Amino acid sequence: MSSIVENNVEKFNTAWEGFKGGRWESEVDTRGFIQANYTEYRGDDSFLEGIAPSTDQLWTKLQELFEVQHEKNGVYDMDTNNPATLTSHAPGYLIKEVEKIVGLQTDVPLKQAFQPFGGINMANSALVSNGYEVDEDMKKIFTEYRKTHNQGVFDAYTPEMRLARKNKIITGLPDAYGRGRIIGDYRRIALYGIDFLMEQKKKDHDNTGNKVMTDDVIRLREEISEQYRALNDLKKMAASYGFDISRPAENAQEAVQWLYFGYLGAIKAQNGAAMSIGRISTFLDIYIQRDLDKGIITEFEAQELIDHLIMKLRMVKFARTPEYNQLFSGYPIWATLSIAGMGLDGRSLVTKNDFRILHTLTNMGPSPEPNLTVLYSSQLPEGFRTFSAKIAKESSSIQFENDDLLRANWGSDDCAIACCVSATVTGKDMQFFGARANLAKAVLYAINGGVDEKTKMQVAPKFRPMTGDTLEYGEFMEHFKEIMDWLAELYVNTLNVIHYMHDKYAYEAAQLALMDSDLKRTFATGIAGISHAADSVMAIKHGNVKVIRDEDGMAIDYVPQNEFPTYGNDNAEADAMANWILDYFMTQIKRQHTYRNSRPTTSLLTITSNVVYGKATGNTPDGRRAGKPLAPGANPSYQDGKFLGEKNGLLASLNSTARLEYTHALDGISNTQTINPNGLGKDETTRINNLRNVMDGYFNNGGYHLNVNVFTNELLLDAQKHPEKYPNLTIRVSGYAVKFRDLTAEQQADVIARTSHDKL
Amino acid sequence: MSSIVENNVEKFNTAWEGFKGGRWESEVDTRGFIQANYTEYRGDDSFLEGIAPSTDQLWTKLQELFEVQHEKNGVYDMDTNNPATLTSHAPGYLIKEVEKIVGLQTDVPLKQAFQPFGGINMANSALVSNGYEVDEDMKKIFTEYRKTHNQGVFDAYTPEMRLARKNKIITGLPDAYGRGRIIGDYRRIALYGIDFLMEQKKKDHDNTGNKVMTDDVIRLREEISEQYRALNDLKKMAASYGFDISRPAENAQEAVQWLYFGYLGAIKAQNGAAMSIGRISTFLDIYIQRDLDKGIITEFEAQELIDHLIMKLRMVKFARTPEYNQLFSGYPIWATLSIAGMGLDGRSLVTKNDFRILHTLTNMGPSPEPNLTVLYSSQLPEGFRTFSAKIAKESSSIQFENDDLLRANWGSDDCAIACCVSATVTGKDMQFFGARANLAKAVLYAINGGVDEKTKMQVAPKFRPMTGDTLEYGEFMEHFKEIMDWLAELYVNTLNVIHYMHDKYAYEAAQLALMDSDLKRTFATGIAGISHAADSVMAIKHGNVKVIRDEDGMAIDYVPQNEFPTYGNDNAEADAMANWILDYFMTQIKRQHTYRNSRPTTSLLTITSNVVYGKATGNTPDGRRAGKPLAPGANPSYQDGKFLGEKNGLLASLNSTARLEYTHALDGISNTQTINPNGLGKDETTRINNLRNVMDGYFNNGGYHLNVNVFTNELLLDAQKHPEKYPNLTIRVSGYAVKFRDLTAEQQADVIARTSHDKL
Repeated sequence: MSSIVENNVEKFNTAWEGFKGGRWESEVDTRGFIQANYTEYRGDDSFLEGIAPSTDQLWTKLQELFEVQHEKNGVYDMDTNNPATLTSHAPGYLIKEVEKIVGLQTDVPLKQAFQPFGGINMANSALVSNGYEVDEDMKKIFTEYRKTHNQGVFDAYTPEMRLARKNKIITGLPDAYGRGRIIGDYRRIALYGIDFLMEQKKKDHDNTGNKVMTDDVIRLREEISEQYRALNDLKKMAASYGFDISRPAENAQEAVQWLYFGYLGAIKAQNGAAMSIGRISTFLDIYIQRDLDKGIITEFEAQELIDHLIMKLRMVKFARTPEYNQLFSGYPIWATLSIAGMGLDGRSLVTKNDFRILHTLTNMGPSPEPNLTVLYSSQLPEGFRTFSAKIAKESSSIQFENDDLLRANWGSDDCAIACCVSATVTGKDMQFFGARANLAKAVLYAINGGVDEKTKMQVAPKFRPMTGDTLEYGEFMEHFKEIMDWLAELYVNTLNVIHYMHDKYAYEAAQLALMDSDLKRTFATGIAGISHAADSVMAIKHGNVKVIRDEDGMAIDYVPQNEFPTYGNDNAEADAMANWILDYFMTQIKRQHTYRNSRPTTSLLTITSNVVYGKATGNTPDGRRAGKPLAPGANPSYQDGKFLGEKNGLLASLNSTARLEYTHALDGISNTQTINPNGLGKDETTRINNLRNVMDGYFNNGGYHLNVNVFTNELLLDAQKHPEKYPNLTIRVSGYAVKFRDLTAEQQADVIARTSHDKL
Repeated sequence: MSSIVENNVEKFNTAWEGFKGGRWESEVDTRGFIQANYTEYRGDDSFLEGIAPSTDQLWTKLQELFEVQHEKNGVYDMDTNNPATLTSHAPGYLIKEVEKIVGLQTDVPLKQAFQPFGGINMANSALVSNGYEVDEDMKKIFTEYRKTHNQGVFDAYTPEMRLARKNKIITGLPDAYGRGRIIGDYRRIALYGIDFLMEQKKKDHDNTGNKVMTDDVIRLREEISEQYRALNDLKKMAASYGFDISRPAENAQEAVQWLYFGYLGAIKAQNGAAMSIGRISTFLDIYIQRDLDKGIITEFEAQELIDHLIMKLRMVKFARTPEYNQLFSGYPIWATLSIAGMGLDGRSLVTKNDFRILHTLTNMGPSPEPNLTVLYSSQLPEGFRTFSAKIAKESSSIQFENDDLLRANWGSDDCAIACCVSATVTGKDMQFFGARANLAKAVLYAINGGVDEKTKMQVAPKFRPMTGDTLEYGEFMEHFKEIMDWLAELYVNTLNVIHYMHDKYAYEAAQLALMDSDLKRTFATGIAGISHAADSVMAIKHGNVKVIRDEDGMAIDYVPQNEFPTYGNDNAEADAMANWILDYFMTQIKRQHTYRNSRPTTSLLTITSNVVYGKATGNTPDGRRAGKPLAPGANPSYQDGKFLGEKNGLLASLNSTARLEYTHALDGISNTQTINPNGLGKDETTRINNLRNVMDGYFNNGGYHLNVNVFTNELLLDAQKHPEKYPNLTIRVSGYAVKFRDLTAEQQADVIARTSHDKL
């Protein structure tokens, strides 16, 4: 029993009035609370309310600020000498008297904080590249006195790691910036208040280790102390806004506000690669429904609260460098918000709030953030499935993940998506994010004996190169496996260094404070270029690939002589090849020692970095041209190689992707598709129903993820020419949404080049 | 082969001209260089020269500054806002144009640096207690941005650890200050120059770990990178004084200067509990002898160089708190300098330089620092043994350690003493210093079931207390073992936390850069109160000890009814009891998991903290009164208990101490003795010869350490009354020397109370 509860009976009685009790009352169990108290909603969207005047006023103001920001190349303003912590900034407001939900990352809307802990060089480079001056005192403090993550990593890297990184066979590593992808269970603050959570952490501290102080025990004890302090700082931060979050929330507005303070702490303290807010919809609905039942709130006011919360998530900004923006265009921060999903007991977790959250895309128009994610199942109520298909079609701003696979593989109905496609059980799991290995390039290393085709550097060990005029399949496979063996080992150990140093120099205390102390940790690797790797192997197997060599005898181009089956066209053999590569590489990953004995996973995911990765990758045996973007994530190739492309329509493509084994890629399989509205049907209702049916089929078939874009290529071409006409045109790219005008020219071209399916 | 040497052949040819080559030319092997090149000296002190005018001028100036410092309670000046690093300060001088050897910790002589990395609270407390203001920016930086060692430790401590610390059953832990006791091989800079050493570290970095990045490998790789950077900073520091230490030293003056720069780096970067300079005498003699042979230096100039070096070591100051000064009176920093010793090949390592170093006590008068330590053996040349006995008698400023035991137990003739009695092989070993457990108090915990006799708190587990009217020996021993089992486990695990955090937050990069990357690490524990523990057990065994209890039934006093044998009187049974306690406790220590798999050792050593420890310890069964100082180190009791005291003279006392097993206390066994000059003989020559003979016998007998004081108690009593008459009166306390006037009143009283032997 919690003595905090015992000593504050009245406060807890008020906060928990009307709730059905359970284990959650005496220990942290947010899921238990939700299961006992939520009200499933099986109806349609007719109850939804329009935009409130306050929302309109705030959103208008914000859009003005966005315009200023856009004109200033994405930077409204930047801090230069106030390192961001939970308590580093005075309260900030958009329009103080109008906001139902308050709290900004800094003291001024859209002003980007100075966050040097991940790496002072990156922080300073972000300043300089945006026209700000480096503060010499800060540089000194974070060089001479306070080492940062980035310095730690490079102190331990081996020359081989640096070389692989430089040659981009391993890319996008979080070694100079925050790893992100950790989702605090922000709901805990609303349900319990900070004091209860501090009491729990105190108990955890007492019970971590028994006398023997091994390094592991010491590390965790220190971390829990850091978490405890962070909780206390969260209280101070909220108090500066005039709120006492030491106690639990007593009504819907407080619940939203308390929860948001938790997330605000995270984005103040960390500039992570993805700062997702998690699965908050059903939880908040419980508070809203209680207030609705009591008659102290209307549906109109409920929507207003949610709109204001979502608006806050649209405002999150981090200081970033041009290189980073090139990799991940459009300033994504992956405030991924997961909704819907099925319960382990067979009820869906859909509430009215899941509708309200999607409805923000109507009330305030489409927006890349938060990265709205529907945990989909054909078992979800039809009203909701139809509504989400409708919003997807109208906004091209939401994504879907297969909730049936989540429950089956993670054993929980409280998963949330971090970043794009990475599942974690809320408050129970954390992820060591690890970017990706370029397997398209690995194919080329296999052929050229570990020499990089772009830089001519010997990157892998000096394996024997393939010297024939054509590529012999059996020989190639031996080489390819050798390279994957080497790559997996090097990759995992590079990540071991990164996560050791991240824990040491940029520990996410504010987020981990809202999670269990005894965490499960996944060690997320990633694969780029899976379709090109698979197609290349298929070309070598069936295509009688001729090799073109440079003056040094190095293979620099490939000409398949015969047609060959490719991934993405519902061809069982080609799809099996993609699966074999995934399985083989993942098996090698699993063989390695992983930091903190974390569980290795991998993803098929590139985000928009497919463009940069493609630039660094030479011609591939499938006929893909050097420098052209890789197909993003697990997408089939849409390259111009003679035999490439999705030739059999959307459903065939989806069938291929659905064949990829999620159990071998538990960090997620990303699939982005664009459908011509006319391809979906003649009228709105048909289109919505067809899209819903496509998704039902795809996910029942074992597909994991779908980014849905519904528009014509003509629209994109027009937006390319006349960006001023489309300030808010939002599209789904690989794992997130982006304003089209914020993409680089190359990325716009890549998006346009992607297959837009005219037929199912 | 070193490419640095290859590319700088002329420089290295000049620097190494005339030296006999060997393995030391291609890899770091200072000992090999010494063995191949030193000239043993078997003569007497007649060659020595007096004080040079430059030395006199500098020493006069320094004494004036010392007077100012004394009047300002030991603090000449303090930095408040410039955290000390290798490069934080502009060059400083005493009298620039006169100094042959330059380099100060800060920019002003005796000004104490601001060193927050061990603990910001300690650093700020040192400022405040000396009348300086805390700099708020520094406080913020070292609280919010840069965590310090002290905070790390307390984040991981268990409540049990805090309780044991608070109740002083475990005391003096380096958890709020630098652990110290690490000795860089400062000679390496002179012999090789920094560039060669950086090249070696680069190689070590390349060869640390093979692919698999476990935490241990990552940690060491990062540490070597830190060391590499520190070497580069040492170059910058030296350059600011106008010296290029990238290359090796070319003559004696450079050799002394280069070596001193290495030590200067250590004391700039670290405020450790003991900052010893190591074994440098024979090494430097090689350079001096070469210059003498070339005729480019005279003996007079050689002595001048050594005097100037020693003067620098007399100037080292650290900012410290009143609590620290109470524990270790007289501002000791343990710039322990080890001389003499035997070689593994049977030659002694005595050179003229060992005479020159002792001679500084004549040229500049006695001084506590550097802590001059003679590695003694009866095999040393008689001329040197006689000379060192003479200097000991005249100055009461030097100590002796048994070099025969060092060679036999450490397998090296290149050991140096860190702090007081702790041996390390120079450049090969480092020590995790761990203060001490109070075994006198442990005896009381055994009786009272783990309840502290002073605070009445339950500190150990609730073991059954002894409730009889007298103490039954068999029952007591079971309890005593239980308490020692508990204490050893708790103590080692407390140290595990400390050293994990010290490595993390206050890593000694500048010192470890001058040591092998693949170090042997000892895990040094310590025992306080061994004689009281042994005598108490003897009292219980033979003395029929009556127990006096308070109103709660707690044992608070003890009255032995019968006489019993005590340690320190050459009684085999009592001495065996002391050995049994040592052996038993050490065995329990060895059972534990130790940080970085370091090798557990222990010491019998209290330094001047015996006074504070005694204050915290109640009446003991041997008759010692509550609050009275414990006998220091391994010294027999000189307490006023009815049956206590060294009753059989100096030689009997020495025999008892010599019986303690050094193999069970490899961190050292400290013994401090005072002899009345008249007790040594009638005339000077007799006294010197007798003292030398006493030491020959004691060390041949297996004694490990001897602090030699030769004076009468009357002298001390007069100095207590008239401190102004004795500004430089220096005496040996436990493991170091101190100016008598700098001791606290209590410590002066304790020193006077100690047995002054009137007869051998």
